[in-house]
Amino acid sequence: MNRHAEHLPADFVLRLDCPDRPGIVAAVALALRDCGCNIEESAQFRDILSGRFFMRTVFRPIERRDSADLFSMEFQKIARTYDMDWRIDPLNVRVRTVILVSKADHCLNDILYRWRTGHLPLDIAAIIGNHPDMRVLAQERGLPFHHLPVTPDTRAAQEDQISEIIDKSGAELIVLARYMQVLSDRFCTLYPGRIINIHHSFLPGFKGARPYHQAWERGVKIIGATAHFATPDLDEGPIIDQETTRIDHTMPPERLQILGRDIESQVLSRAMAAYCERRIFLHGNRTIIL
Amino acid sequence: MNRHAEHLPADFVLRLDCPDRPGIVAAVALALRDCGCNIEESAQFRDILSGRFFMRTVFRPIERRDSADLFSMEFQKIARTYDMDWRIDPLNVRVRTVILVSKADHCLNDILYRWRTGHLPLDIAAIIGNHPDMRVLAQERGLPFHHLPVTPDTRAAQEDQISEIIDKSGAELIVLARYMQVLSDRFCTLYPGRIINIHHSFLPGFKGARPYHQAWERGVKIIGATAHFATPDLDEGPIIDQETTRIDHTMPPERLQILGRDIESQVLSRAMAAYCERRIFLHGNRTIIL
Amino acid sequence: MNRHAEHLPADFVLRLDCPDRPGIVAAVALALRDCGCNIEESAQFRDILSGRFFMRTVFRPIERRDSADLFSMEFQKIARTYDMDWRIDPLNVRVRTVILVSKADHCLNDILYRWRTGHLPLDIAAIIGNHPDMRVLAQERGLPFHHLPVTPDTRAAQEDQISEIIDKSGAELIVLARYMQVLSDRFCTLYPGRIINIHHSFLPGFKGARPYHQAWERGVKIIGATAHFATPDLDEGPIIDQETTRIDHTMPPERLQILGRDIESQVLSRAMAAYCERRIFLHGNRTIIL
Amino acid sequence: MNRHAEHLPADFVLRLDCPDRPGIVAAVALALRDCGCNIEESAQFRDILSGRFFMRTVFRPIERRDSADLFSMEFQKIARTYDMDWRIDPLNVRVRTVILVSKADHCLNDILYRWRTGHLPLDIAAIIGNHPDMRVLAQERGLPFHHLPVTPDTRAAQEDQISEIIDKSGAELIVLARYMQVLSDRFCTLYPGRIINIHHSFLPGFKGARPYHQAWERGVKIIGATAHFATPDLDEGPIIDQETTRIDHTMPPERLQILGRDIESQVLSRAMAAYCERRIFLHGNRTIIL
Repeated sequence: MNRHAEHLPADFVLRLDCPDRPGIVAAVALALRDCGCNIEESAQFRDILSGRFFMRTVFRPIERRDSADLFSMEFQKIARTYDMDWRIDPLNVRVRTVILVSKADHCLNDILYRWRTGHLPLDIAAIIGNHPDMRVLAQERGLPFHHLPVTPDTRAAQEDQISEIIDKSGAELIVLARYMQVLSDRFCTLYPGRIINIHHSFLPGFKGARPYHQAWERGVKIIGATAHFATPDLDEGPIIDQETTRIDHTMPPERLQILGRDIESQVLSRAMAAYCERRIFLHGNRTIIL
Repeated sequence: MNRHAEHLPADFVLRLDCPDRPGIVAAVALALRDCGCNIEESAQFRDILSGRFFMRTVFRPIERRDSADLFSMEFQKIARTYDMDWRIDPLNVRVRTVILVSKADHCLNDILYRWRTGHLPLDIAAIIGNHPDMRVLAQERGLPFHHLPVTPDTRAAQEDQISEIIDKSGAELIVLARYMQVLSDRFCTLYPGRIINIHHSFLPGFKGARPYHQAWERGVKIIGATAHFATPDLDEGPIIDQETTRIDHTMPPERLQILGRDIESQVLSRAMAAYCERRIFLHGNRTIIL
Repeated sequence: MNRHAEHLPADFVLRLDCPDRPGIVAAVALALRDCGCNIEESAQFRDILSGRFFMRTVFRPIERRDSADLFSMEFQKIARTYDMDWRIDPLNVRVRTVILVSKADHCLNDILYRWRTGHLPLDIAAIIGNHPDMRVLAQERGLPFHHLPVTPDTRAAQEDQISEIIDKSGAELIVLARYMQVLSDRFCTLYPGRIINIHHSFLPGFKGARPYHQAWERGVKIIGATAHFATPDLDEGPIIDQETTRIDHTMPPERLQILGRDIESQVLSRAMAAYCERRIFLHGNRTIIL
Repeated sequence: MNRHAEHLPADFVLRLDCPDRPGIVAAVALALRDCGCNIEESAQFRDILSGRFFMRTVFRPIERRDSADLFSMEFQKIARTYDMDWRIDPLNVRVRTVILVSKADHCLNDILYRWRTGHLPLDIAAIIGNHPDMRVLAQERGLPFHHLPVTPDTRAAQEDQISEIIDKSGAELIVLARYMQVLSDRFCTLYPGRIINIHHSFLPGFKGARPYHQAWERGVKIIGATAHFATPDLDEGPIIDQETTRIDHTMPPERLQILGRDIESQVLSRAMAAYCERRIFLHGNRTIIL
């Protein structure tokens, strides 16, 4: 049982976006009331430039057990009227997740700690490494580990194996916890808005390989890390969260790497938490976090 | 005309708080819709411990000029039903303000800059100093300056003079921009939730006089500043905003004072902006910023 | 072998403090040169108020293997002349450490990660818990774990057992990684400047028990953590490092605890790194970090 | 008289850099001692990759008035021996400065405040604007203002006028306080390491025009500002200081501009202070701040 399960035993989250029109909030609030649900939390955003409206509402059925189902059915009419993209998820179900890793273990270590202590509501279906290094860490926690090595020649086949693991396990979320491999366009396209990558620089600065070395070369005074959705455009996907930390001239690239680990772990877990709490909306190449 | 006036020509902000009950959001949203108003922005918070509900909604009359008045009348019934504390303010009217100062000018300089460039929607009615030092700064900007010196013996009379200026000018907000005098209980009680003070420490650490010297003595590695509502309990009023900055052993108290100026100015102006945008709710000795 | 060992195979660190007088730096630099040592890194601080001088110099014997011993002998004369407190430590020897824990595992988890990956140059002699909860974590890493329960009546005896473990193991550093027990004056006095505690608030605010609950009650907008040397005065020892993070009204005390874990772990490991690199000087109740 | 003058009446700063060799610190310290000077503050850095050594030492003549001159002469021999680039500056002489501005006044306002209150030890020789907007601000403070409009066709001639003002006034430092014009290669080359520019982004992200709009388009979650030396390569000069601040999806580009002003002002004045205190060393395209 995760923290949501403990505190909010039967909460659901409604997410929707649609062209902005008067009356949306009233329609949602009325429907929830009429189905015997209470609004626990609600946030909205209207993008002035595009005229699109975004809303995230946590509600709790208070009158009867099937209020959420009832609301879900009732809501279809409203959704049609306002031309909404929408979904309803229970908040007490952990998000089934596959984690891809390579040799660096700091992000995985951090995720496993937060998962084990119940602060990331994940259900980890599998850990996949293109190197075998993380096998021990996975197995210490009783998690299945798949070693799927990859070369330029075998990439398509290896990605098929990854896909098979994801699809068979029913995983929704794919986390690249310093996976260090470029995924094919085909693979990224299979899981739109479901692959979270951590890039070890403050994007859009220092795209590509060895960003801490690039940062050192350029002589910046602050470094950063970026969690973003993976898309076919490498390092160009929608940014979910970023963090920075101050450095100085005494620090060689190796020291930047060590400092960077802490912010990489932190930003990745924040982005994963936002995903699990259903807070992230995609709007073009930008994210709205409600 | 302030920035709100330019961008959101006829916006109003509804603020309310009441015991939490199902249906509040629906009732507000329906009433706004029925009066021809669109919801531009909305935020809410339910305090689990006290069971109290807080809401701030920015709305825009879109059908007719008098929609806001109409809504205001309609809303009285809803407010009674749900036992609400509430108010509606236009967002394009600057907040009439009296600023109290002493000898330090950094906060006043910052406020005047943000006021002059239109980023703090204030209407400065008067600047009052217990010392004459800020007269020039006030007059350069064409603002009335009152020099009201004070001694322990004359405090009651001096505070009466301050009250007279506030009341005659119709000022709503009173800002203590490093005023450095303890106001009487009587004075604080006259303007509940309307006096914002900047304390030059990270409260609750280092209350009282010479906080930077106290911080230096204790050997802290971070200093801070706190904007709070002034209440009869000195340095114990509800906190609106805080900020901190890193220091080290090389910095004597005088250096901390200089560093502190920047965060004091910054925190005070953030708190004033939150006030002007009607974002601050008092809940016991805590603030809720929506 | 730790990171220092890899990069700086035969470095030593000289630390000294003495009354300030002209010529100290020249005397040290000359003696190092004459003993065939090169200065790799050097930092100094002169406390204007007390007139005391502090210096930390990393040097490398470049001419012969025994340069450090030679210098150490030579230096005794200089030290007497200038009335110095001083010591020389090799930088490639890990600091032998005993860690005290209770039930919370986030700080221990973080320390073990940094120790295992070689970024905290510790040699962990033992982990002692007043509860058995951390036994598994210790044993997974092959580290001896001692369960020493304690009640008010048995405290003196339990502290004797702790002392015995420390003394027998030859440990220099004692880390209270959320140990949650008040140590006796007698115990603190046994290990002056060698016990590092992490307090889960931004001292001097919120001393004592349940600081996150205290912070929530007071309605602060920023919380913090403080690493300090333990002294008989609870929560009053010299501060080594602090960190803060922004919070808001939506966060109940339980959420503050979760957020706080990250900064507690971070600050504690920074303080431990400063200790291991011999950067911390005590000066009254303040620390100087060179 | 600036703050340095008040506190450290006759301090000098020696800056040097040279190929690293054993004995440099000893040589400097001995020469200072022998000339009757005390070391007040000293910092050094050895760049491992290039093998270059950098040192900044603040010293005070304590035995006689002409100690600094004496030392300066004596030091020439040491400098030749170690092949040093070096200079000695008195710390109680303000740095003569010309400030270039355009229409935005936040950086200038901040500089003038810190100059007026004595916390930036500048001697402002002139303010030059390609627009007349800042004339009033300059004249309020009794500072000469030159309106030098510029078009693509007149740039060379206008830069000649700027150069004439700089050279006639004997100014050492040139500050581009949001000047918004690209300076010619010829102009940049005339004043190497003497022109400080503030760029309104976290470089190397968002070079060129309208960086806040670029940042908004890319959907970053943090924005920044960068103070750097101007070189012929636009936005590629050595970085002196940077700062970042968190943003979110609700903020349109105009809001980012407003938030950015505070960090631009802050970073620019920090970089200027570092320059005036003679802390900045150029090393290739990187800076070392001692």
